[in-house]
Amino acid sequence: MSGSPSSAGVSTALLTDRYELTMVAAALADGTAKRHCVFEVFARRLPDGRRYGVVAGTGRLLESIERFRFGDQELRMLADVVDRETLDWLADYRFSGDVDGYPEGELYFPGSPILTVSGTFADTVLLETLALSVLNYDSAVASAASRMVTAAAGRPIIEMGSRRTHEAAAVAAARATYLAGFAATSNLEAERRHGIPTAGTAAHAFVLLHDDELGAFKSQVATLGADTTLLVDTYDIRRGIELAIEAAGPGLGAIRIDSGDLGELARQARHQLDALGAKETRIVLSGDLDEYAIASLRAEPVDSYGVGTSVVTGSGAPTAGLVYKLVEVDDKPVAKRSVAKESRGGRKSTLRRYKPTGTAIEEVVHPAAGPPEMGPHDRVVPIPLMRGGEQVAGLPTLEESREHLRTALVSVPWEGLKLSRGEPAIATVFEGGNR
Amino acid sequence: MSGSPSSAGVSTALLTDRYELTMVAAALADGTAKRHCVFEVFARRLPDGRRYGVVAGTGRLLESIERFRFGDQELRMLADVVDRETLDWLADYRFSGDVDGYPEGELYFPGSPILTVSGTFADTVLLETLALSVLNYDSAVASAASRMVTAAAGRPIIEMGSRRTHEAAAVAAARATYLAGFAATSNLEAERRHGIPTAGTAAHAFVLLHDDELGAFKSQVATLGADTTLLVDTYDIRRGIELAIEAAGPGLGAIRIDSGDLGELARQARHQLDALGAKETRIVLSGDLDEYAIASLRAEPVDSYGVGTSVVTGSGAPTAGLVYKLVEVDDKPVAKRSVAKESRGGRKSTLRRYKPTGTAIEEVVHPAAGPPEMGPHDRVVPIPLMRGGEQVAGLPTLEESREHLRTALVSVPWEGLKLSRGEPAIATVFEGGNR
Repeated sequence: MSGSPSSAGVSTALLTDRYELTMVAAALADGTAKRHCVFEVFARRLPDGRRYGVVAGTGRLLESIERFRFGDQELRMLADVVDRETLDWLADYRFSGDVDGYPEGELYFPGSPILTVSGTFADTVLLETLALSVLNYDSAVASAASRMVTAAAGRPIIEMGSRRTHEAAAVAAARATYLAGFAATSNLEAERRHGIPTAGTAAHAFVLLHDDELGAFKSQVATLGADTTLLVDTYDIRRGIELAIEAAGPGLGAIRIDSGDLGELARQARHQLDALGAKETRIVLSGDLDEYAIASLRAEPVDSYGVGTSVVTGSGAPTAGLVYKLVEVDDKPVAKRSVAKESRGGRKSTLRRYKPTGTAIEEVVHPAAGPPEMGPHDRVVPIPLMRGGEQVAGLPTLEESREHLRTALVSVPWEGLKLSRGEPAIATVFEGGNR
Repeated sequence: MSGSPSSAGVSTALLTDRYELTMVAAALADGTAKRHCVFEVFARRLPDGRRYGVVAGTGRLLESIERFRFGDQELRMLADVVDRETLDWLADYRFSGDVDGYPEGELYFPGSPILTVSGTFADTVLLETLALSVLNYDSAVASAASRMVTAAAGRPIIEMGSRRTHEAAAVAAARATYLAGFAATSNLEAERRHGIPTAGTAAHAFVLLHDDELGAFKSQVATLGADTTLLVDTYDIRRGIELAIEAAGPGLGAIRIDSGDLGELARQARHQLDALGAKETRIVLSGDLDEYAIASLRAEPVDSYGVGTSVVTGSGAPTAGLVYKLVEVDDKPVAKRSVAKESRGGRKSTLRRYKPTGTAIEEVVHPAAGPPEMGPHDRVVPIPLMRGGEQVAGLPTLEESREHLRTALVSVPWEGLKLSRGEPAIATVFEGGNR
C-alpha cells in the first residue's frame, strides 16, 4: 500500500477536475463550505450482463489522499482558477474527514455504497475526481480479472498487458489483477511499488535477433537456466519444440505459444513434449486471451495463461461506471431529481445476507442510522478506512484483500459465476430511507 | 512537451516488462546485444470499422525516453531479475539510438510504420513496453476524439472524462483530446503539465449543498461571474433555467444540461432562454455523449459539448493495438513466420500520395532504402525524432501537431470521415521489400 520511493511526496491534488476547485471557492464565499456532507461512491448498474463487480483501488486511493496537498507549484497553477481566499485555504488543506467503504477485494452490486466520504463540503468535494479515477479503473480491471481467474479454474494467469494501457495505469492494472487472483505480472514497477511477483523471459525479437532459433534458445537457457520458458512459435512450432528440448533438455521449464489455434496447438505440443521425455515441461498460452477463450481451453493440456489487452482494458468494460454523489448535508438526505439517473438520498450502509451454507442471498442497502435486523449468518460489509484524514490502523494488506475476494467468490450462488450475460449474482434490496 | 516539475527526473525505466530485461541479460552474455536492430511500431489493423487512426503520445514518449535511466532504486529492484554484469550495464544505460516516426497528429492506417527505433539490440528492445504503453493509450484516445470533433462540426468540445480512467491516464487523455481538436479539459494537471486550457464550473452537488437552487446559482454567479455556466438539471430543468436567469440576468454565459433527451431539452431551453431575453446564453450538453450522440445533435441549438467516458476509453477501442516488432538485424530483414500475424521484415518508410486537389489517395509503405518515385503532390510521412538519444531540435509543439491533424483531416476522402463502419479511408500499399 505504501507509495514507491519515486512517488512519495508527489502531490495528487491537481489530478482533479477544475470544477471541484471553483465549487469550493463559491462555497467558501457563501459559508456553505463548512456544511457537513456525506458523499457516496456506487455503480448505478454493472457493465452489460456482468454478475458482480470487484472493489479495487481503495488502498491506492487512501495513499493518494494522504498526498492530496496543495504546495507552491499547485497554488501557482491555480492562481487563475480561484480567488486569493481560496488559495489561502487550499494552502492549509489536508483531508481531515472520514472514509468508510467496502474492503478491497469485496464484491459489489448495483447500488452498493462502496465508499463513503464524510466531512465538510470543501473537505469532501475535492476528492471526487481522484477517488473516481482510482476506483473506476482499478475496479474495472479487477472485475474482468476475477472472471478470468474463475475461467482458468485454478491454472495460474500472468498479467502481461502493460503495453496496452497508459504506462501508469499498467502498474495499477498489475495490482488489480493480482488482487483478483492472477499469479504474477510482467510489470517491473508493480513489483517495486506493490510487491507483486513478476514473470517473463523472452519475446519473438530475441529469436529473430539470433542467427537461428537453436542459438537463441541455447543463449536463453545459458543465462536464465533450463527452468526458463522458451517461446516456440516464431517459425514452425513443431520444430521449435524440438529445438527447445535440444537446447534445454527434457528438464525445460516451459514452452510458450502465442499465436494460432491455441487448443489444438497445446494438445499437439503436450503430445510432442511427452514423446520427447519432457513430461514435466509446462505449456503456457498467450495471445489475445480473454475469459471466454480461457474457458474454452479448460479441457486442453495447458499449465498457465498469459493475458494482456483484454484484462487491462476491463474486457469490454474499461471503466466501472462508479459515481460520487452527495447524499447528505448537515444530516439531511439530499438527492438529484432526475428521471434517467435514479439517486437515493441519505447515508447508507450494507448488510449482506447469507444462507446457513454460506451462500450469499442478497445485498441489503439501508440507512446507516437504521440497520435492519441481522441474521446469524449476515455480515456488515463496509469497514472504517480513514478517521480524521488518517488511515485506520490494521487495514487489510493486498494479500489479505486477495484472500478476501477468493473467499467472497465462494459465497456467490453458482449462476453468479457464469461468464454468460445475466442478472447480478444477488439482488440489491433498498430498505428504508427516502427513495 | 516538457515534464511537469513533479515528474521531472522520475525514472521511467521500470515501466517495463520483465522480459525486456532478461532478453538484454541473455544478449549481453552471448554477444548479440550489440547487433544493430530496427524496431517498428505499427497497427496490423484499425479498430473494428474505423477509417483512420491518429498518432498521439510521441511527445510524451520522447520525454519519457530521456528519463529512462536505471538509478540505485531501480537497480536494487532488479538485483533478483538479472545478473551482476547486466546490472552494471544498466547503470550506465541511456538510450543512444535514433527514433523516426510519424509526427503527432498524423493519420495512420493498417501497416503504417508510425515509429522506427534503431540502435543496438539492448538499446532498442528496452523501450518496447514504454513506447507501446504511451502510443497505444494516447492514440486510442486521440483517434476517438478526432471522430467526435468531426461529428461536432465546429462546435467546441470539453473533455471531462478524468474520473473514468486511471488518474495519470486522465492527464494523457486530456492532452490527446486537445491534440485531436477538443477545446479544453476539466483536468488541472493537464493544464500544468501540457498547457491545455481548463474549464468547468459546478456539479449537481453544489446545488444540493444549498438550501435551494436559486441560492446555489446566486452564490456561483457571485464568485464566478455572470459569464459562468449554470447546471440547470438538478431538479426541474424549466424551473432551473428560470432561476438561472433570475440569478445571473440575461447576460448569463451558459447553461448546462447533463441528463435526459438532450436534443429535445436543448430546443426547449433555447426557446425559453430566448423568451427570457437571454439570446446570447449558450447551451452546453453533457451526459454519456459519444461521436454518434454528438452527430445526432447536429441540427439542435447546442453551443458546446462535454464528453467524458467515451473519449477517455477510446469509444469502444480503449487501446490502439500498436505493436513493436523487430524488422532488421545488422541490416538484414527479419520477420516472424506466423500464419495469424503477418509481419514484413526490413526497415520501412512511407510516402503518402495525393491528388492535385490535395485529397489523399494511398499510403505507400516501402523499404526505407528504396523509395518509389515521388509525384509532385506526394509527401514523405516520417520525420526524425531522436538522434543519438537526443530529441531533434524544432520538433512540432502540441499546438502545431493539433494544426497538423486539422490539415490532415481535410485531405481525407469524404467517405473516410464517416462515422459508420467501413474500410480504411485510404488503402495501404506495400511496395518492394520482403513480404
